[in-house]
Amino acid sequence: MSKILVLSESDINSILNMKMAIDAVEDVYIQKYNGSGVLFPMVFHEFEPGVADMDIKSGHLGSSDVYGLKLVSWFLNNTDKNLPQIYGTTLLFDDKTGEPIALLNAGGVTGMRTGAAGAIGGKYLARKDSKVLLVVGVGEQCPYQIAASLITIESLENVYIVNPNNPEKAEERLELIKDKVAELLNCANVKKDYSIDFSLDIEIATKESDIIITVTPSQELMIKDEWVKDGTQFSCVGADMSGKQEIDESILKRAKIFVDDIQQSISVGECECAVKNNLISKGDIAGEIGELISGDVLGRENDDEITVFDSTGIALQDLLVSKMIYDAAVKVQIGTYVEL
Amino acid sequence: MSKILVLSESDINSILNMKMAIDAVEDVYIQKYNGSGVLFPMVFHEFEPGVADMDIKSGHLGSSDVYGLKLVSWFLNNTDKNLPQIYGTTLLFDDKTGEPIALLNAGGVTGMRTGAAGAIGGKYLARKDSKVLLVVGVGEQCPYQIAASLITIESLENVYIVNPNNPEKAEERLELIKDKVAELLNCANVKKDYSIDFSLDIEIATKESDIIITVTPSQELMIKDEWVKDGTQFSCVGADMSGKQEIDESILKRAKIFVDDIQQSISVGECECAVKNNLISKGDIAGEIGELISGDVLGRENDDEITVFDSTGIALQDLLVSKMIYDAAVKVQIGTYVEL
Repeated sequence: MSKILVLSESDINSILNMKMAIDAVEDVYIQKYNGSGVLFPMVFHEFEPGVADMDIKSGHLGSSDVYGLKLVSWFLNNTDKNLPQIYGTTLLFDDKTGEPIALLNAGGVTGMRTGAAGAIGGKYLARKDSKVLLVVGVGEQCPYQIAASLITIESLENVYIVNPNNPEKAEERLELIKDKVAELLNCANVKKDYSIDFSLDIEIATKESDIIITVTPSQELMIKDEWVKDGTQFSCVGADMSGKQEIDESILKRAKIFVDDIQQSISVGECECAVKNNLISKGDIAGEIGELISGDVLGRENDDEITVFDSTGIALQDLLVSKMIYDAAVKVQIGTYVEL
Repeated sequence: MSKILVLSESDINSILNMKMAIDAVEDVYIQKYNGSGVLFPMVFHEFEPGVADMDIKSGHLGSSDVYGLKLVSWFLNNTDKNLPQIYGTTLLFDDKTGEPIALLNAGGVTGMRTGAAGAIGGKYLARKDSKVLLVVGVGEQCPYQIAASLITIESLENVYIVNPNNPEKAEERLELIKDKVAELLNCANVKKDYSIDFSLDIEIATKESDIIITVTPSQELMIKDEWVKDGTQFSCVGADMSGKQEIDESILKRAKIFVDDIQQSISVGECECAVKNNLISKGDIAGEIGELISGDVLGRENDDEITVFDSTGIALQDLLVSKMIYDAAVKVQIGTYVEL
């Protein structure tokens, strides 16, 4: 077999920046809506519920001459072993010959593209005067969500982070998250005034926020319906597997909902519980985000409406971002070719 | 992230031999039956029906501390480009931490474990005096089937190869196949007297054979019911995707059938058409091969019975063979470690 290009986390960090990821993810949403991208069924396995699982997301981007997969493993107890909780590995294949062309550490890609997804929800659905962003969950994804939102949503000024199950952790993690956000903005050449602070009280933080991004592995709702002020925009990013839930189903009942993929959203996304409990039906979902970006469906209609973007994460995002990285790596000769 | 061990085709060829593969595959069938191995759902996509497709098979072998996947791509027209029709790539992960541990060229593994599977069907289901083996299909899989059968089934003396759609190809490929079989037997340290010849007439060859292995990408039956003599054993290896079929459904109606995985067999295997056409039902399948090997179900009961082993290929075979290769490679320091 020919050689495969292996791109490590540091190789990828030297190529990818948040602006590239936002452009790619927005492009993927449109391609998915246009039908030029095909998602394959997801494989999901729990080794131990709430402790360790893995999923395989795969698909074909015919317009980019590539198909492939990403396997993401989540092992909660890795923290005790000084290992990352999440490992992501992407394999890319040439869609003209089936040859494997690249193996990528998807860690940086996952962060970037998931951050981009959350921020695109805000870009297209938040009120134009949105100033305050709340990010629920202070894990590895948190700084990517903040940086992408600061890049994408011009009016944003203040960011709060909150960690409902263990509130003090938000304070502990604050400096690390601030540094990572600054680094991500710097890499993307973005200069902007903003503040980032922690909150110990999710109820107060929810009441004061214009945009809320939830990015946790929670299986229980963390945000109650009665805390939510009119006009709030939610991007629910954490729920990507059956059983996960982050916000009160009642919020979904009164919100205008967009999703990245309708089937994934109601089977493994934030909409799963609300649909199972008959609070909403598939028909209540306003559309896929690609329709909204393409301007084929109406988004927010007034400043009082609550809007939700349920982002389950689609393999095509990783594929396009990974293919972009691969092309750039070949061009600038980064990475390691290995005989396979 | 830590380093991943990349094992190329030549690395693997220097470690793996057919005897190891046969032992591993037999062990996997038992583990699957015992419940210590878990198969995840298969992903299958056709880029162009009958021309190019890919599948992702994955699973977890808890007793071997590993989970992983194999992506196999099949591109018919690669022959015109002087490229192999099939590319197989395996990723292995540590089931205690989720870390990717190895990337393997699964080409050699696929050949070996598929050969082993076909031969295990013969070992447990053929008449004890079986002398003549017919292999239908003269592609890359053919020599692996022959070598594994010669190793596993002591009474075998003569082998015929046949290629129904393009009969002359069997003659063209004969010397290459003979060389590869000799090489495989040599690697496994097996000395044996045998002959290999081609046949241009599948009807005559069928009538003269004790064991028939079908290993083609055929979507139409190639072996008619009326050609089959009493006591014949079939291992149907080619049908692994919906729509594929190699032998007359009527053969299945009068045969004792074993499968590697009941669900896969009736949805994508050789049993698919017979079940869809109501010639047999799920209940007519005598059992999984692991039950037979474990001695918990009766196999062939007399010398007149026709027996069939429908091997769809289960990811656990690749996983265990790949894990064995990985362990051996670490021990003897073969392969290339790459930063991921």
